[in-house]
Amino acid sequence: MIGVEEARRIVAEIDVRLPKVQVVSIEQASGYTLAKNLYCPFDLPSFEQSIMDGYAICYNENDPLEFEVIAEIQAGSKAAVTLNQGQAARIFTGAPIPSGANAVVMQERARQLGSQLHIEHIPKPNQHIRAIGADLKKEQLLFESGFQLNASSLGVLKSLGFKEVEVYRKPVVSIVVTGDELVSEDRPLQKGEIYESNSTVLKAALESNGIAVQKVIAVRDDFDATREALKEAIKSSDLTLVSGGISVGAYDFVYRSLQELGVQTYFYKVKQKPGKPLFFGGLNQNYLFALPGNPGSALTCFYMYVLPFLKRMQNISEFESSSISLALEQGINNTTGRALFLKAKRNGNSVHILEHQSSSKLLGFAMADVLVYIPETSCELAEGTSVECFIIA
Amino acid sequence: MIGVEEARRIVAEIDVRLPKVQVVSIEQASGYTLAKNLYCPFDLPSFEQSIMDGYAICYNENDPLEFEVIAEIQAGSKAAVTLNQGQAARIFTGAPIPSGANAVVMQERARQLGSQLHIEHIPKPNQHIRAIGADLKKEQLLFESGFQLNASSLGVLKSLGFKEVEVYRKPVVSIVVTGDELVSEDRPLQKGEIYESNSTVLKAALESNGIAVQKVIAVRDDFDATREALKEAIKSSDLTLVSGGISVGAYDFVYRSLQELGVQTYFYKVKQKPGKPLFFGGLNQNYLFALPGNPGSALTCFYMYVLPFLKRMQNISEFESSSISLALEQGINNTTGRALFLKAKRNGNSVHILEHQSSSKLLGFAMADVLVYIPETSCELAEGTSVECFIIA
Repeated sequence: MIGVEEARRIVAEIDVRLPKVQVVSIEQASGYTLAKNLYCPFDLPSFEQSIMDGYAICYNENDPLEFEVIAEIQAGSKAAVTLNQGQAARIFTGAPIPSGANAVVMQERARQLGSQLHIEHIPKPNQHIRAIGADLKKEQLLFESGFQLNASSLGVLKSLGFKEVEVYRKPVVSIVVTGDELVSEDRPLQKGEIYESNSTVLKAALESNGIAVQKVIAVRDDFDATREALKEAIKSSDLTLVSGGISVGAYDFVYRSLQELGVQTYFYKVKQKPGKPLFFGGLNQNYLFALPGNPGSALTCFYMYVLPFLKRMQNISEFESSSISLALEQGINNTTGRALFLKAKRNGNSVHILEHQSSSKLLGFAMADVLVYIPETSCELAEGTSVECFIIA
Repeated sequence: MIGVEEARRIVAEIDVRLPKVQVVSIEQASGYTLAKNLYCPFDLPSFEQSIMDGYAICYNENDPLEFEVIAEIQAGSKAAVTLNQGQAARIFTGAPIPSGANAVVMQERARQLGSQLHIEHIPKPNQHIRAIGADLKKEQLLFESGFQLNASSLGVLKSLGFKEVEVYRKPVVSIVVTGDELVSEDRPLQKGEIYESNSTVLKAALESNGIAVQKVIAVRDDFDATREALKEAIKSSDLTLVSGGISVGAYDFVYRSLQELGVQTYFYKVKQKPGKPLFFGGLNQNYLFALPGNPGSALTCFYMYVLPFLKRMQNISEFESSSISLALEQGINNTTGRALFLKAKRNGNSVHILEHQSSSKLLGFAMADVLVYIPETSCELAEGTSVECFIIA
């Protein structure tokens, strides 16, 4: 049995050689991770642009503040306009600056009568003109490989004419649920049965993190059936999540199956509550977490181990900021000798531990937005102590 | 022109009578908002359950610590087992407790030889037995109307046999982009043109908040075309987002079209940077935001006004916690007389203002995870001052 820090370190350091590159359209790329650095293909804007509604003018020092308006240029105009000394053009925000113009005057600072324009102040050179390349310069680095594409980065790429990008493909994930007591169909329960819900929880948690589930396999408590289901899932998935069946009871066939299939154990059992019987292993470049059967324990392990590993599988370069430090609203006495993960709710810069911490209870989880981490070495923590909190919502 | 606080108050108080109820399956319900309170339909667990691998025993005070093992009960077992005094059953985690049993002994605290069982300690009554209703009691309130369904709540509902739930339908959103300078097709730019990217940004931002976009309409700078496009979008959408065309330039037809269509103005122009020309209005129960054309301004307005309004449209009861208080890493001097929204990155409990604040630059936005709000009345803020930060990633 290892400690939480060591277990998380193992998850963070396994040499994941999964990522394969695929090409996706900009429209489909949100949430994907860039597989190579992207550079700016041209200056943006690619032409001098007015940043005001007003007048473009051709003005030389000591000229009078009077101009003749010879053209009108709206945004998107393709007309070739040239201004000579003393000439102006009515111009609108975003429109191209005509040749010869060297300043834009806001309409509030100018008075037009017929084609005659009077401006109030001596203009500064190039005022209200957005220069070529002012926003982005040709060949500048835009985003590094490992950057997870979001709304604004897609906007940047779209504005530069990118139609598709090379990204790492997302991991293929399967879920195996074990247990004779589990009922997946829609029928009344008999004594001893419970409705299978862990696959629903894991699927929703995966999907809200941008990962689709390839398949959910339900398997009864039978050694051969368990081994074959695991074999099939592992072979066809980058990551297999097993729910239940990992303790040492005689009917818990998962661990024995994994042994027989030659799955390498990275760790089995972690000094934590909930989630002690967590297993993490791999077979070639296929990985597997076996999660405890209790839904609350399974979800805790998902957020603390599975999700960081999935981010590594996608080569996301930056995801450590999901932990923050908050002050405890209640004192805590940890007498378990294990690390604790407590369902809690952030309240400004402090954190409130919720009721319903029992590992079988998901209700507390539904209300939680952080998991508070209490190391195994911490015993009594007074109210107000700063604790590490992992954001889960 | 109104201030930010007033504008946000108006968005928060408009009487949105949109929500209609629909029924969705549990599998599809993630992210939807419950339209009525949900109560627990039965006790969970619905039978007494072992929470350990070990032995169920029938023990009375002063009995010897010896038992005869008469049965084996695995999880999901439907066998009707009854224990009499001095009898035990091998039992596994999750399995139903047999009639007559009044404690479970962990296997580590027991020794079985043939059918004879010896236990080490006098058991406590009902130890390691999860009572009927220990997790959830029949008729207890599970989730209130207005609760936004997440992974764990779906697990709770699934474990209670719910197959579908009544939720508020999501708002229908359309996007209208205006401007002759915008190129949506895949072709090289001519002078004066830019690639249209705001719809990409808004679509991705909406989708990552669980809202699909019904349609994107591109319209040229022409009064009739603008008015007809807006009329069509408003009529067919709960919320229309217009990008560009809201300033007072002669070619900006949006505001005039909205007037002519009878759209009621809730506000037009907000004392803020970026995003000053923001418009918010409504026609019957159809609402419209006209956002500035600069992509950074548009996205700022999206996070500060549109997203909270979309959450209200979905009747989500709780979403205020998206703002946190962090300490400035740099001093700020706000001489604009307007409120500022600054793209920034959280760093533990402090916040780092990013370069590239210009409203035309999306690159800073792509790296930001919070928007720092500096009220218009704040002039000089020293390093270390606490500021309100809105989480955007």
